[in-house]
Amino acid sequence: MNLKDILKLDDKGLVCAVVQHHETGQVLMVGYMNEESLDITLREKKACFWSRSRQKLWLKGETSGNVLHVKEIRVDCDADALLLRCDPVGPTCHTNETSCFYRRVEDDGAVTLAGDGVAAE
Amino acid sequence: MNLKDILKLDDKGLVCAVVQHHETGQVLMVGYMNEESLDITLREKKACFWSRSRQKLWLKGETSGNVLHVKEIRVDCDADALLLRCDPVGPTCHTNETSCFYRRVEDDGAVTLAGDGVAAE
Repeated sequence: MNLKDILKLDDKGLVCAVVQHHETGQVLMVGYMNEESLDITLREKKACFWSRSRQKLWLKGETSGNVLHVKEIRVDCDADALLLRCDPVGPTCHTNETSCFYRRVEDDGAVTLAGDGVAAE
Repeated sequence: MNLKDILKLDDKGLVCAVVQHHETGQVLMVGYMNEESLDITLREKKACFWSRSRQKLWLKGETSGNVLHVKEIRVDCDADALLLRCDPVGPTCHTNETSCFYRRVEDDGAVTLAGDGVAAE
């Protein structure tokens, strides 16, 4: 069975890709891939996404140097989401936080800084 | 700052929600939430999603009993993805696998069973 035969892209031709640190388990970011960015990711073993805001291919770290080296790719039961287990060269978030998920949502919906680098514990 | 003021829903009124085991760091599933399912999740502290296939609210575990008790919610830098750190009552996947991401994608795109419960290691 090949990924291409089972992968379900959405109506924009995209699939959700969760990036997780392959050693710590920390969830670093969520991005979206089209077929071309997935091909590049599989070939180069560096995470490449489709930027929905810029509508172009986005090789993560191309500018910042903070490349995500892909150690393993997983696909979920519905084949409509991917999990990329990566070795990040530097901070994943453009804010310089280790993870893009650096803010906590409290019970009342208040958003606060977690201040802990979202470690997997 | 409240989540409701910053959250960016997509053109279908949905936001991507990654579910992670709050202790092991294992990524368990990816779901989508609309405002109502997010409200329920915040109030009940059990993960509730919008089922895109069935077009209805989906309180995870409602039928199977495999509820996801929500220990913490994170929001990402763009406020267009959520991370739910959960305590799962049982297997998260409908296949009875611990995680929905139980299949590995090899370099050539071949999909294989990971056979390891996708542990965070």
